[in-house]
Amino acid sequence: MNKKITAQSKDFSQWYLDLIYESQLVDHAPTKGCMIMRPLGYALWEGIQKELDAQIKALDVQNCYFPLLIPEEFLQKESDHIEGFSPELAVVTRAGGKELEEKYVIRPTSETMVYHMFAKWIKSWRDLPLKVNQWANVVRWEMRTRPFLRTTEFLWQEGHTAHQSKEEALEMVYNALAMYKNLCHDLLAIPVITGQKSDAEKFPGAEKTFTFEGIMPDGKALQMGTSHLLKESFPASFDVSFQNKDNKPETPWCTSWGTTTRLIGALVMTHSDDKGLILPPRMAPTQVVIIPVGPESKRAEVLVYAKTLKKELFNKSIRVSIDNRPLSPGAKFYDAELKGTPFRIEIGPQEIENNQLVVKSRIQDEKQKIVRNDTVSFLQAELNLFQKELFDRATKKRDNLIKEVSSWENFKEELESGYALTSGWCLSPDCEQELKKIKAFTRCLLETKKNVICFFCKESSKQDVLIAKSY
Amino acid sequence: MNKKITAQSKDFSQWYLDLIYESQLVDHAPTKGCMIMRPLGYALWEGIQKELDAQIKALDVQNCYFPLLIPEEFLQKESDHIEGFSPELAVVTRAGGKELEEKYVIRPTSETMVYHMFAKWIKSWRDLPLKVNQWANVVRWEMRTRPFLRTTEFLWQEGHTAHQSKEEALEMVYNALAMYKNLCHDLLAIPVITGQKSDAEKFPGAEKTFTFEGIMPDGKALQMGTSHLLKESFPASFDVSFQNKDNKPETPWCTSWGTTTRLIGALVMTHSDDKGLILPPRMAPTQVVIIPVGPESKRAEVLVYAKTLKKELFNKSIRVSIDNRPLSPGAKFYDAELKGTPFRIEIGPQEIENNQLVVKSRIQDEKQKIVRNDTVSFLQAELNLFQKELFDRATKKRDNLIKEVSSWENFKEELESGYALTSGWCLSPDCEQELKKIKAFTRCLLETKKNVICFFCKESSKQDVLIAKSY
Repeated sequence: MNKKITAQSKDFSQWYLDLIYESQLVDHAPTKGCMIMRPLGYALWEGIQKELDAQIKALDVQNCYFPLLIPEEFLQKESDHIEGFSPELAVVTRAGGKELEEKYVIRPTSETMVYHMFAKWIKSWRDLPLKVNQWANVVRWEMRTRPFLRTTEFLWQEGHTAHQSKEEALEMVYNALAMYKNLCHDLLAIPVITGQKSDAEKFPGAEKTFTFEGIMPDGKALQMGTSHLLKESFPASFDVSFQNKDNKPETPWCTSWGTTTRLIGALVMTHSDDKGLILPPRMAPTQVVIIPVGPESKRAEVLVYAKTLKKELFNKSIRVSIDNRPLSPGAKFYDAELKGTPFRIEIGPQEIENNQLVVKSRIQDEKQKIVRNDTVSFLQAELNLFQKELFDRATKKRDNLIKEVSSWENFKEELESGYALTSGWCLSPDCEQELKKIKAFTRCLLETKKNVICFFCKESSKQDVLIAKSY
Repeated sequence: MNKKITAQSKDFSQWYLDLIYESQLVDHAPTKGCMIMRPLGYALWEGIQKELDAQIKALDVQNCYFPLLIPEEFLQKESDHIEGFSPELAVVTRAGGKELEEKYVIRPTSETMVYHMFAKWIKSWRDLPLKVNQWANVVRWEMRTRPFLRTTEFLWQEGHTAHQSKEEALEMVYNALAMYKNLCHDLLAIPVITGQKSDAEKFPGAEKTFTFEGIMPDGKALQMGTSHLLKESFPASFDVSFQNKDNKPETPWCTSWGTTTRLIGALVMTHSDDKGLILPPRMAPTQVVIIPVGPESKRAEVLVYAKTLKKELFNKSIRVSIDNRPLSPGAKFYDAELKGTPFRIEIGPQEIENNQLVVKSRIQDEKQKIVRNDTVSFLQAELNLFQKELFDRATKKRDNLIKEVSSWENFKEELESGYALTSGWCLSPDCEQELKKIKAFTRCLLETKKNVICFFCKESSKQDVLIAKSY
């Protein structure tokens, strides 16, 4: 328990807010709907960037940078797109001391700008595939915001590719989706469900949208990112065309895919508890913190000993720090728990004498005594186990939050009780529309077909679907 | 010679523009004064980021992220600042479909936002030093733009720190400046001159501004970044205050320092020639390109051989690629020269038979024959020599572009002939003002005092000064 953090069981939403501010991931910004990402919060984003950037490059996608400001008229070229985004646009009307004749919108996403350039860069089948990505900030003027989960400005990456054939483009869509799934499972230790969005829920202008969804501990689904197949909308609207091998003009099949700082919100909600954050070791900026204990008079000796251990751990690529601030050991334990550091090591004169260190895992109640010379190998093994344990826990918790429900009568009640649902669906938009009345949404189509009838009309089901309230 | 690139000797400015577009570093953007950074251009920025970010962290500075949009009223809190920046601001007046009551400016720099937060984060001397940095985009509505050198939107890092004492803050200012100088010398192979700006040239609101300046081949000075000492302006205007060790309120001494994508422009201008880019090996995304030559019928065998070599080089951390595009070897040689790849290796059936590869350095006219088994060690040594050679060349070229001139009568002529000047200065702003009439500026004060009299008034000189036309 941390007195400054509302208990998760009492108010999940308030717990989340208390936690992210108290642990100094973020602070309130004077800009409406924005956040300040403080060092710990930003370090988590850097961890995601480093891993994801390498994976993006491994798919032969190259990083570029496109302008922040997009001519307002560009947004109007694709009718679905402008309908989807216009309520959220921030517009620059004045610059350099003058009213602008041509207004600019701050990018809510960069398809319009990217396709304007693709039209210039793509002439022949030899120019394909063309695969670019950018790491950038985007702005969407949201009414209700919540740090990481929905902010007016957020950070993300957006990949954009163009291909000769639908098959090749679809392969890229799936590769991006698989990359995200691996990122969530291996790095963030968050289990996700991947699948196709319904037409009502897809990206404005996309042929198909695929999503990866996390189920948060309150039973709400969180869309953590998407991967789209595009053709008639953007490439065609922006006159992107190539001479195919038969010398005939053809519109390329395109993809776009992205994920955002929202992942950090998912990370926090999935693993943390009432004492504070719990960070998977692969994400933790500090994996092990060494805290000197015992009388002040022996502190110098303890520090020398601690520094030797720190160097040993550092040489084995363990991210380690010594907390030598002028605070009590108790205050440091409390802080390490709040910040989610996976392991703390206590070292005092007694530990030095006994040649045994006290190690405490963030996810176990008991402290352990470890022989000094075993510390490196112990921590190497335990950090891996910790990472795995978090994923297993999160998967169990998640699986318990999903109920197979066939009867519409129970839907509202189960959703209100904090469950996500799977059910059958006839795929009709009319049945999907009924969900909105109980503030729920289809999240994605599932690979399975376990249910025989549609959740609403009771006609025969064509495919299972994940249904939930959502962030 | 590259037919698509104007000769440097004919028109330096046009040479630069032809080169950056032709080598595909950038493309024209549909947003006024902006550029698209294409993969090669953005890779150079990534190279700078990677090295500089590690150095920033080594100074115990932590990365954060502050909002893009700053309430317009913030800019008015610091009078020098608003005077300096207001002609360049881009303003969001409409968002979410409504006129905004509170307008936002897109950050031209983040001091106002950062100090708003510092006022909240800093209470006591125990909270100091506070050292943060962000990697971000900024917008300044410039009238005359040129890719990399001056663009409406650009990418940069901005460090902001607060300290208890002036001495400690000044040390940070100098550390940042030394960091930049090392970056330029060691990574970019660009010699820079560091020194303090005159009051007329300093950052609006700074106590002191230090700069690092490159002298470009046309004799113009390029300010490549700055490091500022701040007190009365920002910290005081934003009510940043701490309880000192005597429990008295005190304004901290602060610093800010930044550098930008402008560095890429400096890199291009400093090293390149009429055939294309020349990239220092430490910056080159591809250090060595292997180009198969000889008859198509033997291509498969050559490729197997090339892949073995590629792997060997890769294992020694040499960034290597094989150019296997369906183009003639000549077209590939031309492209490798245009893109500035330090070394190319030609491999054909003859080279395999003779166990000797043909290696061509981007900065030597002659090809060399290297025994296959010596290739790795040869390239390891040559890449280092190449890096050093570029810095030495650039330093010689730079030194020849700076003239010691004491007589005002010769000033205009020497500047017009493409020289930067050093001279004595009485430090009076009146003398400095005279420079504007001949379109020149003081760039920075020098450590030396070689000149006895002031360049203009002929009174006794207090310090030497670097004077030049500028970008």
